[in-house]
Amino acid sequence: MITVEDALRRIDEHTALGSKIEISLAEAYGYILAENVLAPISMPPFRQSSMDGYALQWSENKAYTVVGEVQAGIARNSALQRGEAVRIFTGARVPDDADTVIIQEHTTREAAVLNIDKMPPLKANIRPKGEQVQTGDLVLEEGTVLNEAAIGFLAGLGFHTVPVFEPPKVGILVTGNELQQPGQPLREGQIYESNSITLQMALKCAGIPEVSLERVGDDLGETVNAVKKLLQNCDLLLISGGISVGDYDFVQEALEKNEVHEVFYKINQKPGKPLWFGTQGKKKVFALPGNPASSLTCFYVYVWPALRKIRGVKTYKTKEKTAKLETPIKNPFGKVLFLKATVSDGEARQLGAQASSMLKSFAICNALLIVPADKEVINPGEEIRYIALDQL
Amino acid sequence: MITVEDALRRIDEHTALGSKIEISLAEAYGYILAENVLAPISMPPFRQSSMDGYALQWSENKAYTVVGEVQAGIARNSALQRGEAVRIFTGARVPDDADTVIIQEHTTREAAVLNIDKMPPLKANIRPKGEQVQTGDLVLEEGTVLNEAAIGFLAGLGFHTVPVFEPPKVGILVTGNELQQPGQPLREGQIYESNSITLQMALKCAGIPEVSLERVGDDLGETVNAVKKLLQNCDLLLISGGISVGDYDFVQEALEKNEVHEVFYKINQKPGKPLWFGTQGKKKVFALPGNPASSLTCFYVYVWPALRKIRGVKTYKTKEKTAKLETPIKNPFGKVLFLKATVSDGEARQLGAQASSMLKSFAICNALLIVPADKEVINPGEEIRYIALDQL
Repeated sequence: MITVEDALRRIDEHTALGSKIEISLAEAYGYILAENVLAPISMPPFRQSSMDGYALQWSENKAYTVVGEVQAGIARNSALQRGEAVRIFTGARVPDDADTVIIQEHTTREAAVLNIDKMPPLKANIRPKGEQVQTGDLVLEEGTVLNEAAIGFLAGLGFHTVPVFEPPKVGILVTGNELQQPGQPLREGQIYESNSITLQMALKCAGIPEVSLERVGDDLGETVNAVKKLLQNCDLLLISGGISVGDYDFVQEALEKNEVHEVFYKINQKPGKPLWFGTQGKKKVFALPGNPASSLTCFYVYVWPALRKIRGVKTYKTKEKTAKLETPIKNPFGKVLFLKATVSDGEARQLGAQASSMLKSFAICNALLIVPADKEVINPGEEIRYIALDQL
Repeated sequence: MITVEDALRRIDEHTALGSKIEISLAEAYGYILAENVLAPISMPPFRQSSMDGYALQWSENKAYTVVGEVQAGIARNSALQRGEAVRIFTGARVPDDADTVIIQEHTTREAAVLNIDKMPPLKANIRPKGEQVQTGDLVLEEGTVLNEAAIGFLAGLGFHTVPVFEPPKVGILVTGNELQQPGQPLREGQIYESNSITLQMALKCAGIPEVSLERVGDDLGETVNAVKKLLQNCDLLLISGGISVGDYDFVQEALEKNEVHEVFYKINQKPGKPLWFGTQGKKKVFALPGNPASSLTCFYVYVWPALRKIRGVKTYKTKEKTAKLETPIKNPFGKVLFLKATVSDGEARQLGAQASSMLKSFAICNALLIVPADKEVINPGEEIRYIALDQL
């Protein structure tokens, strides 16, 4: 049995950044940029009018002759002489001969004659070429999370693909004779299987939308074959249940037969003590406890940071926060406790129903309180560390 | 021109909760529960062993005879007499005749003889039927956000569909002759079109994965037809660009011709002043400014809360936070300013490059500072309100 810190450290040692791949910008939401991005064009790419009005050569004249018009999107470079003006619209290319744009509200127009009511300063209302970005500028750094603004910014520079870190291919193997699928009638002795959908949704939230899923009964041969099949196609395998030492727990043996080497088994924590972690080359296997809340606790504490690291998140280690405890917590177990709680305005309130077979309190909590193994009591008003589940 | 508060109020008045629909639990991630959910079964659904060991009738005997075995998932109710024990595993149904489970570590077994090394209290290691949930209990309330734990909890109760509030069908119309698609060569006078992908990604993040998209040039007929087509299939339409009063801005006229009635046009804010909002029956149209950063600002401030309300989020209004300002902000405009910033550890730092045509600062910010219209200066150390963009 190892400590929580040791388990995190060993998982970290066996976890490497994903490869660089190029994907479509439209599919890149939530991915992490794998290279520094240099601007392939200047922005704006030409001298651009920032207003609707008239482009002209600045002078003290009070009247100009309108000789043409430039809409946005028109490539033509309208020629104009001193004393001439060109009608222009927001976003349009300013003619090379013009040095100023006057907004339409400060003019009076009669046919081709433009009367200047209030001349702006020289160069007014023109965005110089490259004002915001020059060709070759470093515009986004490796490690940037591709949110809607980053993706839009890259689209505005003309990118339609983007280099990102490849997320792992993840498999889920659910074991257990007692498990029935939701929507089917429940026979005596059965319970509904919820770990696969819980893990799939948690993975989706962690940036892994597609998952390979297998289900087997408590049978060694079936388990060996399912592990083999999943490890052929996946970089990371999550196994649910079958990892205890009962006569019908075959997961450990099935992993050995597939040459998955144990890195650790059992952590000094509650819930989630029988977590098993091992590797087969670069592939990783987490065998999670079958109890739903234990399984999800282990996912949040151990699997999620590993996924962030592979996906390229620079600050992949879970940042713990602190809050003031409302009601006392006793820890006679000598183990680290992870307790479902709500934290608001800096106050932490432990929820009832912490049972490891129950997801209800997880469904309504936003924090996992962390009680150190050597801390027998935490009193109201004391600070307690926690993981903010809504900010993972 | 109206105030920010007035704009939010008028949008709110025209926005109603979505209809109830029943969807597959596997597709329900991020949706909001539209009804209170009552438990259709008890959990656990039978008396369940919480350990690997032996089920027996408690007594002071030191030896029992093993007469059978119950694995998890076995429906059979093994009969046993006083002085007899049944081998049992975690999660298995405890025989009706047994009242206690002794863990295997506290026994010594020789063939059919089970020696008790340490008898636990009566009823030990048995989870009573319905210990966690009784049939008919209220287990999740209307308004619960369906995260991984809530979905897993519902799966564990046997649900494979779930009642949720229907999100709106959203359309995007992008207008502008100057726009070129990313990945294509840029001609003189053109810029890359980034608003559609930015809005699509922001909508995805706001729980709207699928969007209908149309693009038109600056042409009245095309714009009228595109608005008509999109409003046939969508509940909410976002239009990008063409809403100013230039000679080639046809959006307002196209909306009038489609009998979309103006609720307001122009807000006393910077950026995003020319926001237009209107309705056609229950359908809503936001005509957003064409400048990328103005468009995204309006999305965050006005569209996102409306989407949350329709989708059933109880606390749909954006919660503003406060931080201490690091460097001074001047506001000579008499308008509300929305400024891209980073907030960490309660300190707000305004980013450079606030230009409304630029998404770069949006790509790396996590907050939108709110400067009141009547506040000419905010000094370092003063509190400033902000919208936390990573917690919308």
